[in-house]
Amino acid sequence: MKNINLGVLGLGTVGTGVYKMIDENHDVIYKRLGAALNIKKIADIDITTDRGIKIDKKILTTDANEVVQDPDIDIIIETIGGEDIAFDYIMKAINSGKHIVTANKALIASKGNTLFNIAIDRGVDIAFEASIGGCIPIIKTIRETLISNRINYMKGILNGTCNYILSKITQQGSSFEDALAEAQQKGYAEADPTLDIEGIDTAHKLAIFMSLAYGMELDFKNIYIEGITKITPMDIEMADKFGYRIKLLAITKNRGDSVEARVHPTMISQDNMLAKVDGSINAVTINGDKTSDIVLYGYGAGMMPTASAVLSDVIDVSRNILSESILRIPILSYQKQYIQKIPILPIEEIESQYYIRFTTLDRPGVLANISGILGKFNISIDSVHQKGRSSNNIVPIVMLTHEAKELHINKALNEIKSLDVVVDPPTLIRID
Amino acid sequence: MKNINLGVLGLGTVGTGVYKMIDENHDVIYKRLGAALNIKKIADIDITTDRGIKIDKKILTTDANEVVQDPDIDIIIETIGGEDIAFDYIMKAINSGKHIVTANKALIASKGNTLFNIAIDRGVDIAFEASIGGCIPIIKTIRETLISNRINYMKGILNGTCNYILSKITQQGSSFEDALAEAQQKGYAEADPTLDIEGIDTAHKLAIFMSLAYGMELDFKNIYIEGITKITPMDIEMADKFGYRIKLLAITKNRGDSVEARVHPTMISQDNMLAKVDGSINAVTINGDKTSDIVLYGYGAGMMPTASAVLSDVIDVSRNILSESILRIPILSYQKQYIQKIPILPIEEIESQYYIRFTTLDRPGVLANISGILGKFNISIDSVHQKGRSSNNIVPIVMLTHEAKELHINKALNEIKSLDVVVDPPTLIRID
Repeated sequence: MKNINLGVLGLGTVGTGVYKMIDENHDVIYKRLGAALNIKKIADIDITTDRGIKIDKKILTTDANEVVQDPDIDIIIETIGGEDIAFDYIMKAINSGKHIVTANKALIASKGNTLFNIAIDRGVDIAFEASIGGCIPIIKTIRETLISNRINYMKGILNGTCNYILSKITQQGSSFEDALAEAQQKGYAEADPTLDIEGIDTAHKLAIFMSLAYGMELDFKNIYIEGITKITPMDIEMADKFGYRIKLLAITKNRGDSVEARVHPTMISQDNMLAKVDGSINAVTINGDKTSDIVLYGYGAGMMPTASAVLSDVIDVSRNILSESILRIPILSYQKQYIQKIPILPIEEIESQYYIRFTTLDRPGVLANISGILGKFNISIDSVHQKGRSSNNIVPIVMLTHEAKELHINKALNEIKSLDVVVDPPTLIRID
Repeated sequence: MKNINLGVLGLGTVGTGVYKMIDENHDVIYKRLGAALNIKKIADIDITTDRGIKIDKKILTTDANEVVQDPDIDIIIETIGGEDIAFDYIMKAINSGKHIVTANKALIASKGNTLFNIAIDRGVDIAFEASIGGCIPIIKTIRETLISNRINYMKGILNGTCNYILSKITQQGSSFEDALAEAQQKGYAEADPTLDIEGIDTAHKLAIFMSLAYGMELDFKNIYIEGITKITPMDIEMADKFGYRIKLLAITKNRGDSVEARVHPTMISQDNMLAKVDGSINAVTINGDKTSDIVLYGYGAGMMPTASAVLSDVIDVSRNILSESILRIPILSYQKQYIQKIPILPIEEIESQYYIRFTTLDRPGVLANISGILGKFNISIDSVHQKGRSSNNIVPIVMLTHEAKELHINKALNEIKSLDVVVDPPTLIRID
């Protein structure tokens, strides 16, 4: 019986899930792979807490070096998370000739260029399917299924926490703060939810996706990022009135010599498949030039869905080990010599339709003022909704524009903001 | 520059698409694969018709033997279709040591057991992603992404022709015959549409899926198959009233020592992702024990989507050639020695909710008669809808049952059929 020996770094949710899954499904894994997955060592700073799994204490250690330097271990599964400690141990593991499987999107997005070059030089595989969209085969689809397509665009819901919060606001009319509190209470949001609600986690995933899609170096820092903290129940109600849902989308478009890359709340038609994705589910629409849209949908996080993705990588790498075909597929989809720096278009350069909500004093001529300024910047208006007079003499005016350049929108809004009758900064939501 | 030499059998829609795609996207293919795909020979009985592609006439031949016996060709792409001629040439190609890529679901479903055994003995790969769901990565997802999951069930819309026809009846209230004629006129249905509308094509795909999911020998002939020819606008209207859509689904469920496998029109909730799949799109919901539902959606047919799937296989096999890892993944997902005969449960043994439409004379006591017989067989009724009196004294009665065993439903319907007041055989549609 052939064995693939695994070392696990971190026995948190994902690490525990991986252990559980191998324990419960070793028979089907063996019948398909033709070899057994054997967890030889697990390192965690806490090896005493009961995680609800039966585990041989002899394989537990508090010293991660023991795992990455064990000569019998073939593959290191990194589930520590974060960028620094994880990076150090992965580097040690690569230098010991181990293959790497990780779900760590922050690490890949920020240090992938370095890691991958070293891995290729050392002849080891790094796999990271679980870093985007949990159990959904997004990386496999882009690297393998769509391999002979040019990728035109991808639009995706890639953060379950944000999607859960937006679904709650939509369904219950809760405020953002209440919806976040509920998400935290139910374990869908972290105590410090910044990475999720500010869109950073989504952008990490977008950076990885784009690299695979276009053959470009990972470039997290130039992605435009806007979180969901400013979305109000009123915007969601207005979206509904116009036939839209608001989702935090990762969007990338192939623009030839450059690419669009942005994360922001987006209004999408209620008919769009992505509009129907509720709760902590993830989904992506990927458009290949020959396939048109492919939509993939499933659990984007959680112990077992993530463990499933990690194990699909572990088994892919195991097959490479067994058939002596390490690095059979280039890590970033393109052969190393064809990976380029491709510029990300500044957000001012994109074109979109826009939802703009103004908060104004209820005076005659306000609408004419605002639409006059928009007209000056060649922004044409698709529809206007003005709510009835309020008790405090303040009214919201909502406008939907036709396609316009973001630069022109920004200039117009700057001018509009300075009008006496405009009370708060306008709320801008892009429509896709 | 490394070359992978391809031979194409059949220059119909798919063969032409493959040629076009390599021609138009050779640059991205080369940058990703690290080798060029080179179509060395194409065989077709008609090599004179203009197919809208620029093709070097020297590579065309009417003799398929020239292609399968060319010593320089690495991979044979079979796009002839049908079971007999295709089988013969594939066998010749395998015996010449060629790897095979095919979209031929009828062939795989009926002769896959034989073909795969011979291929494994001869050490060649056979790939057939395009045989299920066009460009959607269904086979890759089951063989690779879900590899460490037990598969609980799959429900899928796998035939674009049927889905197009059902969408038309739903949207326009057309009769089945009119919707079929429209589908034929638009090229979505063949002149002889039997394979599609009778559910046979869907069952071919289901047979392949099940084999991969459960490690069972291909068993097409025991799948229960019911087509869409009996669906009326009235059933679709009633479905809508109860909150359902009617779709032709392929359904398989893992029942432990046996499996369910059936193709039939099915009422699914309008909230179900599959209910929202319209026109010639395909979609599947696959449930793994650790992932829960994964939904995959995209074009299930057409020249370029199918070519895209064929080329994803060609490139997978090319990578196996380049890294000398032929048969890296077992053809039917399980290692050969673990593939079993697994019995398909007779349709009488399944349990479901049912929609039953009776056509009866408008007389007092009819409803009591019918529900009395259902009650005798322990079938409890969820809701009843009786339409108003018609001019010809004939009324439809529609009943939705709770979960019941199909055997009991059949017995009850047999008894009900024999009632004097029941005019036509009842229409039965399973609810999922």
